[in-house]
Amino acid sequence: MVLEIKVPHGGGWKDLTELIPTFLSYILSFVYIGIYWGNHHHLLHSLKQVSSSIIWGNINLLFWLSLVPFVTGWMGENHFATDTVALYGFIMLVSGFSFFLLMIAVQKNSHDNAELKQAFNHLNRKGIVSTICYASSIPLAYIHISASFVLFIFVSILWLIPDKKLEDALKRKNSE
Amino acid sequence: MVLEIKVPHGGGWKDLTELIPTFLSYILSFVYIGIYWGNHHHLLHSLKQVSSSIIWGNINLLFWLSLVPFVTGWMGENHFATDTVALYGFIMLVSGFSFFLLMIAVQKNSHDNAELKQAFNHLNRKGIVSTICYASSIPLAYIHISASFVLFIFVSILWLIPDKKLEDALKRKNSE
Amino acid sequence: MVLEIKVPHGGGWKDLTELIPTFLSYILSFVYIGIYWGNHHHLLHSLKQVSSSIIWGNINLLFWLSLVPFVTGWMGENHFATDTVALYGFIMLVSGFSFFLLMIAVQKNSHDNAELKQAFNHLNRKGIVSTICYASSIPLAYIHISASFVLFIFVSILWLIPDKKLEDALKRKNSE
Amino acid sequence: MVLEIKVPHGGGWKDLTELIPTFLSYILSFVYIGIYWGNHHHLLHSLKQVSSSIIWGNINLLFWLSLVPFVTGWMGENHFATDTVALYGFIMLVSGFSFFLLMIAVQKNSHDNAELKQAFNHLNRKGIVSTICYASSIPLAYIHISASFVLFIFVSILWLIPDKKLEDALKRKNSE
Repeated sequence: MVLEIKVPHGGGWKDLTELIPTFLSYILSFVYIGIYWGNHHHLLHSLKQVSSSIIWGNINLLFWLSLVPFVTGWMGENHFATDTVALYGFIMLVSGFSFFLLMIAVQKNSHDNAELKQAFNHLNRKGIVSTICYASSIPLAYIHISASFVLFIFVSILWLIPDKKLEDALKRKNSE
Repeated sequence: MVLEIKVPHGGGWKDLTELIPTFLSYILSFVYIGIYWGNHHHLLHSLKQVSSSIIWGNINLLFWLSLVPFVTGWMGENHFATDTVALYGFIMLVSGFSFFLLMIAVQKNSHDNAELKQAFNHLNRKGIVSTICYASSIPLAYIHISASFVLFIFVSILWLIPDKKLEDALKRKNSE
Repeated sequence: MVLEIKVPHGGGWKDLTELIPTFLSYILSFVYIGIYWGNHHHLLHSLKQVSSSIIWGNINLLFWLSLVPFVTGWMGENHFATDTVALYGFIMLVSGFSFFLLMIAVQKNSHDNAELKQAFNHLNRKGIVSTICYASSIPLAYIHISASFVLFIFVSILWLIPDKKLEDALKRKNSE
Repeated sequence: MVLEIKVPHGGGWKDLTELIPTFLSYILSFVYIGIYWGNHHHLLHSLKQVSSSIIWGNINLLFWLSLVPFVTGWMGENHFATDTVALYGFIMLVSGFSFFLLMIAVQKNSHDNAELKQAFNHLNRKGIVSTICYASSIPLAYIHISASFVLFIFVSILWLIPDKKLEDALKRKNSE
């Protein structure tokens, strides 16, 4: 996470207040990156071999995630201006879609595992809900940005709940 | 460690003197990060399987540690102003507590090892002392910042002494 | 990828337009770095032992790749000025040649594998085409920079097509 | 390597000329970091178990190496002013000594290997020569900085020659 918060020149609490929006968007993005990291770990841990579609799916995902610090900083520094929130939603939408593409590539490489397939279906359902939320957050930013943020926070909560099914499937697979 | 010290424009020793507080807080934070890194290594090295509570405990710890460069820079650039020292103590307090949460998550995953449990108890004792020190450093900063620093340096020395018990327990476990 | 896009102060879409050249060069460089990462992964994955010629080949490659963020930023910030495009082509030329040197070092360490050798020959052919393109892109920048970019994009497409032969050779090797 | 070269605003070759000293110190530091990385890899690769003295030796080495970008930037930006060159020599001296301390810690953990011990003796001899050079470079900077640079370049060449003995000892150890 290369997200950098610039150190203010004054040394009192009041000098930190101007950083509150930057800090709030930092938390949100850190949680998202954490979610991706956690699921990415789960996803790639189940692999024994890496195909080039997985490598490219991974690079594509990392490209969009590499833009997260930029959109986070832009949103924070401009105190959640409408366009910045819409762009944030857009980057989240495309990142989510890229994760979905990577998931498909992984699935193709581990084709003979029924349990894993079921767990992936579970991830898919979460993914579809997230996609709808992110896609909605973009136009909603132009009505009221707080509507977008309700969706952003909802999606983060949705994913923070650990995916027991995937975890169990992987555990069983490893102990086989 | 993304802590960055800005290069001064002048090329003489006197141009470095203004950087002394920044450099001192850099050393302190580097030692702390080193302590976390060392214990983190010991802690996660004993794992064979990663649960989602461990992943989330890890992300939570990394979140607070990711703020260390910011509070270090703020403290250094403002020559140890009272509020900056109090915030430094607060971030250290929460980081320590996050490490404690991660330790609990790891313990749950390695439940059947009596020796490791004993070693963890040892870490716990150090953790309780550190927590009291960090918590005290926050109000003490408003009396005299040097009181806070006595505590910061005491905690770092406490942890720099290697934890022979944990190390031995892990060695025995690996050689089994 | 330490390529950093500076956050603009304004919070509207128009404030992003000035960043378009920086963003375009960011994409191009991200794809190139991705290509190197993918091939680097394939190349070093086939190794069981690391010799010092491989370590030095690797450091040499990383040196030139470490300059990519600089030349990318220079090109983007100066809206693809002629000299910046020529330097970009030069760094790409030397990076490609460094990859070739690393490949030779790897080949020396895995001398008894006929299939891998054949796959490397395939990589060599791609490498020769890329070298000619990069070398041509330098003088062509002084005629018209779009000519250089046609070559840059052609090379990236050439490498984006996965190298089935190398992949298959490695798969067979691993499953032996 | 977080060493960052700031992108100049102009887009012509002449705008790069002011960066030449920064670039030269970048190359020198990159080679040094590469040398440490290569030897570090060799050193830690021979380990099967990590003791806390190794972890602390490693953190100590990383602390001094983390200051290399700062001293490199200071030296480059001030066009090799005397004090900056002396500080560069000092950081190199302490980094080298820290590597020596780490080496001792590693040796203690792999006590029963005669060949490795001999190879370490070889590294020791190089280390003593480097230490004398670095220590001399500090006062020599005040006579003429080019004298310091002759020593810096001599040390880098000394280490760039691969350490066949260590390599061979490790190869034999791995194949046992």
